[in-house]
Amino acid sequence: MFDSGLGGLTVVRALRSALPDEDIVYLGDTARVPYGTKGPETVIRYALGCSRHLVARGVKAIVIACNTVSAVAPDHVRAALDVPVLGVIDPGARAAVAATSSGRVGILATAGTIASGAYPRAVATQSTRVEAIGQAAPLLVPLAEEGWLEGDVPRLAVERYLAPLADAGVDVVVLGCTHYPLFRDLIEREAQRMISPNVRIVDSARATADDVVAFLNDRGLRADPRPTGGSIRVCVTDRSGQFHAIASRFLGEAIEAPELVDL
Amino acid sequence: MFDSGLGGLTVVRALRSALPDEDIVYLGDTARVPYGTKGPETVIRYALGCSRHLVARGVKAIVIACNTVSAVAPDHVRAALDVPVLGVIDPGARAAVAATSSGRVGILATAGTIASGAYPRAVATQSTRVEAIGQAAPLLVPLAEEGWLEGDVPRLAVERYLAPLADAGVDVVVLGCTHYPLFRDLIEREAQRMISPNVRIVDSARATADDVVAFLNDRGLRADPRPTGGSIRVCVTDRSGQFHAIASRFLGEAIEAPELVDL
Repeated sequence: MFDSGLGGLTVVRALRSALPDEDIVYLGDTARVPYGTKGPETVIRYALGCSRHLVARGVKAIVIACNTVSAVAPDHVRAALDVPVLGVIDPGARAAVAATSSGRVGILATAGTIASGAYPRAVATQSTRVEAIGQAAPLLVPLAEEGWLEGDVPRLAVERYLAPLADAGVDVVVLGCTHYPLFRDLIEREAQRMISPNVRIVDSARATADDVVAFLNDRGLRADPRPTGGSIRVCVTDRSGQFHAIASRFLGEAIEAPELVDL
Repeated sequence: MFDSGLGGLTVVRALRSALPDEDIVYLGDTARVPYGTKGPETVIRYALGCSRHLVARGVKAIVIACNTVSAVAPDHVRAALDVPVLGVIDPGARAAVAATSSGRVGILATAGTIASGAYPRAVATQSTRVEAIGQAAPLLVPLAEEGWLEGDVPRLAVERYLAPLADAGVDVVVLGCTHYPLFRDLIEREAQRMISPNVRIVDSARATADDVVAFLNDRGLRADPRPTGGSIRVCVTDRSGQFHAIASRFLGEAIEAPELVDL
């Protein structure tokens, strides 16, 4: 699995829970984070670099944990490297389509993901009667990395980002960035107040884990059960002082010191 | 001149005003922005890449417009490349020492700049009777890039960042990141309320421009006056859709399309 930074550890967390026997190599491109504010050529170039590194480590499949990368790069990675590639957008779109009654789903994501139009396309392949309304919510990324998860600043930011979705009449809000699950309670509370008490929040991490389970079962690639379970190896491209605080906040379990790699 | 992104265009603006006849090549490493959250090894590696690119273009001197880079990389760039290098921290520290009466100056900067201890060191070389108190203010960078310059969110963030400086009894606040001048009025207003009506705000961009003038005069490197003035050439490593909005916000004048370079 790779991600622009450490946010994808929320997907590792879901994957560990669904697939406890798999060995997971996680590569966080912390030297070049964030990707969400950057253009597609740059994101594709970085995604290829990360994927080559993982293939060289002998992985059997690559999960792109980053929504921004999943929005623009999977086909390029599949074309360049002979490895199965799974992203987070199709599972998120599928879960959103399953959850909506009104046929209007809101997508909170980075500027790059929204600009790509990947969620509306993924929703359209699931159902012609569901419309996806995108809203870039870029400040939630630095707020999550700073640990400003509660209080007036994140609440006002969430309120500002939800307002256009409330106006558009959505009944589902997709957390379309791996950082946003850290604001899940806040987003749910504000969405219930601003949109409807019955609004549904979709976190694509769990839907992605289900997708990976199905993929490994289909291909007969599941690891055999082991008493100790699978391992997690975390690699980063920049070893900043905040790694442990951020990593444990996202992963929800203690973690070994990361390995530094140069792409 | 180079910077981690486009924030350094505030320094270009000051430099253009002080040195209208110089040709300026500005390299914004927008593909890897921000540097402020990253560790020193990564920042030094990126600074060397940017500097090599500028040297290959035949510049007579390099101005590091980024505080984070100026905090950790100038000596490494000077050692690796035979080119004069000027940073933004020494000028900012000098201006702060000149402005303080209480002998306590506050520094708002990125996490990387604060962790480096570069401002306290630079202040100490200017005066043994002045103490620098650092406060990381990382959220101001994404707020500036999103254009959230007014309203409750930036006000509450500024209030939170100024509180420890108010407690420490500073009478000067240094804007130790190229993005922060965009919040100058807000920071000044809040600092006057929280610290003292006589608090002084120091923006290192102007002090840096004065330093570059003195350096070029000393070396006899000033460009001859030209009726049309000098040129600005802006290069970026990622061409995101927001370039023009951000660039004109920081530079204060219209600008040609940037050249895309691959480092």
